[in-house]
Amino acid sequence: MAAIYLDNSATTPPYREVLELIGRVQEETYGNPSSMHSKGLDAERLIGEARRQVAAFFNGRESEIFFTSGGTEANNLAIKGAAYRNRRRGSHLVTSFIEHPSVLNCFRFLEQEGFSVSYLPVDEQGLIDPGALKSLVGKNTILVSIMHVNSEVGSIQPLAETGQIIREANPDVLFHVDAVQSFARLPLEVKKWQADLVSCSAHKIHGPRGAGCLWVKEGTLLQPLLHGGGQEREMRPGTENTAAIAGFGLAARQGEGRLAQTAGQLRNLKLIFYRELRNSGTRFIVNGPAPENGAPHIINISFPGLKAEVLLHSLEERGIYVSAGSACHSRRPEPSHVLEAIGLSGRRLESALRFSFSVFNTEQEIITAAAETAQVVRDLSSMIS
Amino acid sequence: MAAIYLDNSATTPPYREVLELIGRVQEETYGNPSSMHSKGLDAERLIGEARRQVAAFFNGRESEIFFTSGGTEANNLAIKGAAYRNRRRGSHLVTSFIEHPSVLNCFRFLEQEGFSVSYLPVDEQGLIDPGALKSLVGKNTILVSIMHVNSEVGSIQPLAETGQIIREANPDVLFHVDAVQSFARLPLEVKKWQADLVSCSAHKIHGPRGAGCLWVKEGTLLQPLLHGGGQEREMRPGTENTAAIAGFGLAARQGEGRLAQTAGQLRNLKLIFYRELRNSGTRFIVNGPAPENGAPHIINISFPGLKAEVLLHSLEERGIYVSAGSACHSRRPEPSHVLEAIGLSGRRLESALRFSFSVFNTEQEIITAAAETAQVVRDLSSMIS
Repeated sequence: MAAIYLDNSATTPPYREVLELIGRVQEETYGNPSSMHSKGLDAERLIGEARRQVAAFFNGRESEIFFTSGGTEANNLAIKGAAYRNRRRGSHLVTSFIEHPSVLNCFRFLEQEGFSVSYLPVDEQGLIDPGALKSLVGKNTILVSIMHVNSEVGSIQPLAETGQIIREANPDVLFHVDAVQSFARLPLEVKKWQADLVSCSAHKIHGPRGAGCLWVKEGTLLQPLLHGGGQEREMRPGTENTAAIAGFGLAARQGEGRLAQTAGQLRNLKLIFYRELRNSGTRFIVNGPAPENGAPHIINISFPGLKAEVLLHSLEERGIYVSAGSACHSRRPEPSHVLEAIGLSGRRLESALRFSFSVFNTEQEIITAAAETAQVVRDLSSMIS
Repeated sequence: MAAIYLDNSATTPPYREVLELIGRVQEETYGNPSSMHSKGLDAERLIGEARRQVAAFFNGRESEIFFTSGGTEANNLAIKGAAYRNRRRGSHLVTSFIEHPSVLNCFRFLEQEGFSVSYLPVDEQGLIDPGALKSLVGKNTILVSIMHVNSEVGSIQPLAETGQIIREANPDVLFHVDAVQSFARLPLEVKKWQADLVSCSAHKIHGPRGAGCLWVKEGTLLQPLLHGGGQEREMRPGTENTAAIAGFGLAARQGEGRLAQTAGQLRNLKLIFYRELRNSGTRFIVNGPAPENGAPHIINISFPGLKAEVLLHSLEERGIYVSAGSACHSRRPEPSHVLEAIGLSGRRLESALRFSFSVFNTEQEIITAAAETAQVVRDLSSMIS
C-alpha cells in the first residue's frame, strides 16, 4: 500500500535534488563559513547563492534575507526583535486570533513583559476585517503581525488593504507577515503589502528541516534574539548550517518563476478532492474559505458525528496521512484555536480534518484519497448509527 | 594533493554513518514529529533515541536534554534563560574573559539590560583562579558561566574546584558550562562540577550542522528564548530537525564508551605534531597550556616575525587547513580576545596559529603537516630577513 501524504502543511518531503545537494555539501563543503581558508570561503559562497535564490521571491536584495533555524525562530525574531527594539516608542502590539503558535505565544509572552496586545477576530471564512485596524492602530502601536495564509483553514488575508490602513493610521508601525504557508505557493507582494518583515520556512516547500529566513526591509532595525560570533550580520549568530541553507536555496529555486503554475496545480488537486468527495454522497462541511477560494493547497473539512482522531487513524490504516487540527501543538489534544476562532464548536469542531496537498501528489492519489475518505466515513457512520 | 584538515575546533567533517543516516531520515522519516499519524510517531521515536544517546554522555536522564539548533543557541538559552528567569533573585553574573563569543556577547547584552557582570581574568596558561570566586560570588549572584575547554588555546578549567567554591559562596547560583569543545573528547563530569547547565554542539563531534543541546539539571528552571508550538517541553519550540538530531545522536554514540581512547588518540597526534615541529629546528612558541597538558586536540603556536594570515594561506596552498585566531568571529580581522587575555601582544599575537586535530587525522598526515609548516616558516622567514 503506497502512502498518500496529505499533511503537507505540517511538513513536506524534500525534493530529490535537495537531498542530493545536502548530502554533497555536508561531505564536501564542511568548512566553517567563518574560517579564513578556502573551505570556509567555499561554504560562504554556497550561502551567498542560496541568499540570492531566496531573495528572488521577495524581489528583494540579498542583504534583506537573514537565515534562521526555521519558521518559529523567524517569527520570534521578527516579533520580539521589533517589540524590544521599539519599546521606547510604544508598547502596543496587534495580531489576530488565528496566528500560528510561534506568533501567538510570542505575543502572550510579550504581554507578561509589559506590552499590551490587541487580538483581531476573524469571520467564519477565517478573515480579519482590516477596517478594524483604523481605530486600533495608534501612536503607541509599534507592531502589527498578520499571517498571509492560515495553516489550518487556508484563508488568505487581505494584506494590501491591511498594510494601507496601518500606514494611514501610523506610518512608523512595523508590519510583520508570517508567510510560512504561502512561500513558493503564492506571490509574496511585500511592496503591495507595505510589509517590513516576512517569515518563511524551508521544510514547507520541499526543502530541508533546520532552515528558514526572515526578510527584513532595508533599514528596519531589530533586536537580535541570539548573541554570538557575528554571523548573518549579527542578526543571527551561530555557525551557519551550510547544507540546510543551500538546500533551502535550491528548493526555492525549484519553485521560482512558476508560482502561478504551482498554485494552479495545487488548486486543481484540491478541487478534484472536493468534487470527488461531494460526488460520493459523503456528508461533510467545508470549514473556512469555500474550496474555490483560499490557499490552493489546504482544505479543512468536518464530518459531523465522527471524531477527527478516529477518522485520522482509519485513514492512516489505508495509507492516507492527514491532520486533525494543527500539527504544531506537539500532539496536545486541544481543540484548534483557529477553528474555534472561525466559530466552530461541538460536533463540527470535533470532526474537522485538514487535507493539505503538494506538487508531489498526483491526481490519481487525490481521487483514491477521496474515495477512501468516503468509505471510511461510511464505515464509521454505520458503526455509530 | 590531499587536504589535511587541522581546523577541527571550528568544525569537523561528519562521520560517513552520520551522513547516511541523515540522508535516510530526510527521505523516509520526513513526517512532522508533532503529527498524530505514524509518520509523526516514527520521527518522534528517532528523536527519543538520539536523546538517550546524548544523555548517556551526562550520565543523565533523557528529560535533561533539550535539543537546540546548535551551540550558540544552547549558550544563549542557558545564559539569558537563567538570567531572566532569576532576575527577581539577583542581578549579578560571573563569567571569564576567554569565553566563546556566544557566551561573552550574551553577557555584554545582559549588561545593557541592567545586569552587572564580573569577568574573571586568566593566567598565561588560560586558566581562571577559582579562588577569585570566593569574594565575587555573593547573595546577588544568580549565574556563573565558565567554559570547559577553551577553543583557541585548549586550556581545561578546574571546574570541580570552581563548582565547589560557587556552592560554598551561594548554593542558589546556577553554574553553566560551555562544553562545546570538550563534548565527546573529555568526560563531562557534571556531578563533580556541580553544574546545572551544560552546552554542546553536534558539528564539533563529526555530527551535522544544525543540532546542539543544552543539558539542564532536573528541576532547573529557565526562561525559553523561543515561544511556539510547545516542542522540547516548551523549552525550544519549532518543528524538530529530525535528521540533524538523529545524526547528532549517532555521532555521540560513535564516541560513547571510548572517551579515554579518543582523547589518547588526539593527544598522540598533538604530541607528534609538536615533536616533529621542534625536531625540525623551527622557531616557535606554544601559547596557553604546554603540549602535554590542555585539551587533547588543540595546540596554539606563534611563529614570531611572521603574520598568521600569511602563514595560513601558505599552508593552505600546500593543502593544510588551520585557523588564525578563532573562526567564530565571522572573519573579522580582530586580534583574538583569548590570546590577549593570556597576555600575548605584538609579534607573538600577530603570528599565532591554531592547529586542531580529529580522529579522522592520521599520524602520517600530522608528520606531513609539521614538515610543511616547518618549510613554510623557513620560506617566509627567508623572504623577510
